[in-house]
Amino acid sequence: MRRGDATRERLLTETTRLVHRSGFARTSVNTVLQAAGIKKGALYHHFPGKDELGLAVLARARTAFLAFIDTALTAPSPLEGLDRFFAAALQAHRDMGFVGGCLWGNTALEMSDSSPAHTEIVARVFEEWISRMERVIRAGQEAGQIRTDLSAGDLARLVVAGIEGGIMQSRLKKHEGPLRSCLASLRVLLVKEDYGRPGA
Amino acid sequence: MRRGDATRERLLTETTRLVHRSGFARTSVNTVLQAAGIKKGALYHHFPGKDELGLAVLARARTAFLAFIDTALTAPSPLEGLDRFFAAALQAHRDMGFVGGCLWGNTALEMSDSSPAHTEIVARVFEEWISRMERVIRAGQEAGQIRTDLSAGDLARLVVAGIEGGIMQSRLKKHEGPLRSCLASLRVLLVKEDYGRPGA
Repeated sequence: MRRGDATRERLLTETTRLVHRSGFARTSVNTVLQAAGIKKGALYHHFPGKDELGLAVLARARTAFLAFIDTALTAPSPLEGLDRFFAAALQAHRDMGFVGGCLWGNTALEMSDSSPAHTEIVARVFEEWISRMERVIRAGQEAGQIRTDLSAGDLARLVVAGIEGGIMQSRLKKHEGPLRSCLASLRVLLVKEDYGRPGA
Repeated sequence: MRRGDATRERLLTETTRLVHRSGFARTSVNTVLQAAGIKKGALYHHFPGKDELGLAVLARARTAFLAFIDTALTAPSPLEGLDRFFAAALQAHRDMGFVGGCLWGNTALEMSDSSPAHTEIVARVFEEWISRMERVIRAGQEAGQIRTDLSAGDLARLVVAGIEGGIMQSRLKKHEGPLRSCLASLRVLLVKEDYGRPGA
């Protein structure tokens, strides 16, 4: 890695950490420079300004998040994929002590009314997340594991909404209880009533 | 109303509007003074500082929000109460053009890791909201309208999470589709399978 690339990488890593924790409005260029240990000129060598740095943070985080989803959903059966995803999501937020929450949910609420560029990336990530959940839920419906009275798309949208809302409640309490409860309820509600019953 | 009370009221109204739209970090004291058309001295006559003004905004909004919930949930039957609440929530956000979203959700994500005082009020409002939903869901379970394989408390928590997550997705798209879909799915998932069926 060239020295310039290493600087760019450190800038992105530190900005991601700060934005995840405090949001875009409260992450100043000076905080970023201090955290990354670089001079203002080096930042502007890599990014025209704070907004472009922020968008690069989201673009990089998107790649990591989609990989996280795909890894978690890979399982012997659709329902096991959902279970693994739920467990991985709970573990990720538990590891952070329910600090920071979901970068996508945070940015959605912070930027939806003020920055079309941020909103476009976040809206796209939500649709990519929902469409991956939809695919596994549809496979679960076809395998007789998941209820079919609601479309896979509608169920996927609610699953993502329920997870974001659960993270919100767990962050408020700094406790896994609310997110764990939401995930457990979603699983009960998704599973086909007679799935796994003897004779079904 | 005394002149001082009118000033205090105008301060709270304008700050609520600004915070609802832009969050606490991006609402400066100067923006507030300009919007309310008052001098700095008048603000500090009523509030020791920006934080106290913000907390007063939340305290006032809490009263209005609990009244909104109680009005919506008052209905001939528990399920009709839920339907009215869902319709009222959708209408409220539609009226705002999906701008601003939910003050409680926004403040939860903005302040959960930085301000214990804000977090305490928001966490309390979420629990008050959930407990009101729990009461109507339990009544619906006892009336045979709502499924009983999950506790009223767990269902209530997921309903609130799903609404917050639905608002988040609708704000990103400036379209009612996602919130409407989440509410419709929640209703299907909550209702007891044989409710309303002839002979059930």
